[in-house]
Amino acid sequence: MSVVIAVDAMGGDTVPESVVAGVLAAVTDSDLHVLLVGDEALLRPLVCGADGVTIRHAESVIPPESDPIDAVRGDVDSSLVVAAQAVRNGDADALVSAGHSGATLAAATLIIGRLPGVARPGLAAVLPGRNGPTVLIDAGANVDSPAAHLHSFAHLGSAFAQHVLSINNPTCGLLTIGEEPGKGDVRTKEAHALLAADATLVYRGSVEGCDVLASLVDVIVCDGFAGNVALKATEGAAREAFVRVQREATGLRASLGGLLLRPALRRVRGSLDPDTYGGAHLLGANAVTVIAHGSASSHGIAQACRYAAEGVRADLVAAIAARVG
Amino acid sequence: MSVVIAVDAMGGDTVPESVVAGVLAAVTDSDLHVLLVGDEALLRPLVCGADGVTIRHAESVIPPESDPIDAVRGDVDSSLVVAAQAVRNGDADALVSAGHSGATLAAATLIIGRLPGVARPGLAAVLPGRNGPTVLIDAGANVDSPAAHLHSFAHLGSAFAQHVLSINNPTCGLLTIGEEPGKGDVRTKEAHALLAADATLVYRGSVEGCDVLASLVDVIVCDGFAGNVALKATEGAAREAFVRVQREATGLRASLGGLLLRPALRRVRGSLDPDTYGGAHLLGANAVTVIAHGSASSHGIAQACRYAAEGVRADLVAAIAARVG
Repeated sequence: MSVVIAVDAMGGDTVPESVVAGVLAAVTDSDLHVLLVGDEALLRPLVCGADGVTIRHAESVIPPESDPIDAVRGDVDSSLVVAAQAVRNGDADALVSAGHSGATLAAATLIIGRLPGVARPGLAAVLPGRNGPTVLIDAGANVDSPAAHLHSFAHLGSAFAQHVLSINNPTCGLLTIGEEPGKGDVRTKEAHALLAADATLVYRGSVEGCDVLASLVDVIVCDGFAGNVALKATEGAAREAFVRVQREATGLRASLGGLLLRPALRRVRGSLDPDTYGGAHLLGANAVTVIAHGSASSHGIAQACRYAAEGVRADLVAAIAARVG
Repeated sequence: MSVVIAVDAMGGDTVPESVVAGVLAAVTDSDLHVLLVGDEALLRPLVCGADGVTIRHAESVIPPESDPIDAVRGDVDSSLVVAAQAVRNGDADALVSAGHSGATLAAATLIIGRLPGVARPGLAAVLPGRNGPTVLIDAGANVDSPAAHLHSFAHLGSAFAQHVLSINNPTCGLLTIGEEPGKGDVRTKEAHALLAADATLVYRGSVEGCDVLASLVDVIVCDGFAGNVALKATEGAAREAFVRVQREATGLRASLGGLLLRPALRRVRGSLDPDTYGGAHLLGANAVTVIAHGSASSHGIAQACRYAAEGVRADLVAAIAARVG
């Protein structure tokens, strides 16, 4: 099945060069096509007539500091809005953007639309758990989410774990700050009651920050603020551990040890790399939407396109619709 | 100057044995005395008449699952309440407990009392930052704190950094989920406005989860929910990195490398160990209060006693009173 991905060519830190380079790498997969949206005059010489890439012109770009909803409503000629409209019109199956993540959430909600039963789409980061991938939702797209939205995230994340990560009957847990169900803030206690009362979830109770990589559950449910803090603290600490090992590995003995251990250290570093997928699925919209990292390299963009295509092929949107409808 | 620490002998996971062992280690410091509060019949044979330890009997123990405020108000014969009263009466200079942390917060607030100008005491964890210690406040004692409490935590943490960690003009930052001041949840945006408008703080703006160990600021200000998540995610990821290195270091080459690198790995692991201090200061009470880890070893308890004594000698409470009064 051939899949068409609409890519916002103008969103991200190093555009359009690294986005185009990533797209050109992604379309070497024979069944992946890209509708590349942005300034045609800039894009045409970079794409250079490559097979599998169609350029669609967009006049403007949404600036990083703009209000997401105002920008999406007001800037109808922006690359993000034109790309989202292409998905809505059926010209593409999925949206990928490395631009303003709040605006991408707004475009998914306002243009592509939400599935019935979804109050707010949730951003599903996939973490390198000890025994396999772990979904963390919401990873930062939403803040100030009420408990009912957290409940909805549990279903979105479970559908994703099952259909994209192929985990049967995925378990879920609630991110909080103590093992006992009575611990946590007001919202978390309310969310606990909702999750515990829902027999269609495989709910395992509380998960703490220290358990994020421990594979205790398949899906970690949280508000986007706590989720983003947990995600970034985990990434930062793992990176810091390796920086310090490098700094300490001086002198003949340790240098030699570091040299011999290097392949193992690289494997572990790779296993803890949050960039494996190049982005995160925004779940609950009417079409597959992947938010790539703003700083994504061309490799990251290519991975994000493939990751979006995987969601399309797995019929992720239909699976979510069946679950939450 | 001789310091007397009131220690709750009955709070913690392995009581009273490891608490007593820790206390006996701490009182080998010639100027540290301990008022050990708990079941006298259990404690006397363990203490065995050691110099520097006075036992004060308490009839009961606050169970881990009890409501903090009800427990402190209702169970006046509990080891925690008797220890807090000893501090209030001037029989001891500081309180150390490894028991129910919510109850210790309640005992500090209701019995020892808050300093004028302090709405809620804040728990100050000290993290092993890349270039030295970093204070994270609140680390989990309070949840659902309004922005005004976060503002107060910035002052409590700054006073602590200056007087106990000897950092001159400590800088502070606000834990949030984006670099721009407009990012974050409603509370964080309000707190940002309060911190930015306060010329008596050295406020540096936003800090993200990935920066927790990066020594960007001396004091990281946050709500206890996000703070506890950041703290535990950081601890968990650093630990996980070493677990995975050990798991990957198989085969002749890697095993030899691991052997040679072992001292360096141990140093890094030690540098990332959150247990250096054995506990965390609860700042804003009328006397020095240290919450030790519930799972504290005897070494952890000894460190917590020394850490409390350090706060007394640094005249921490007077310094905080001068700052917030």
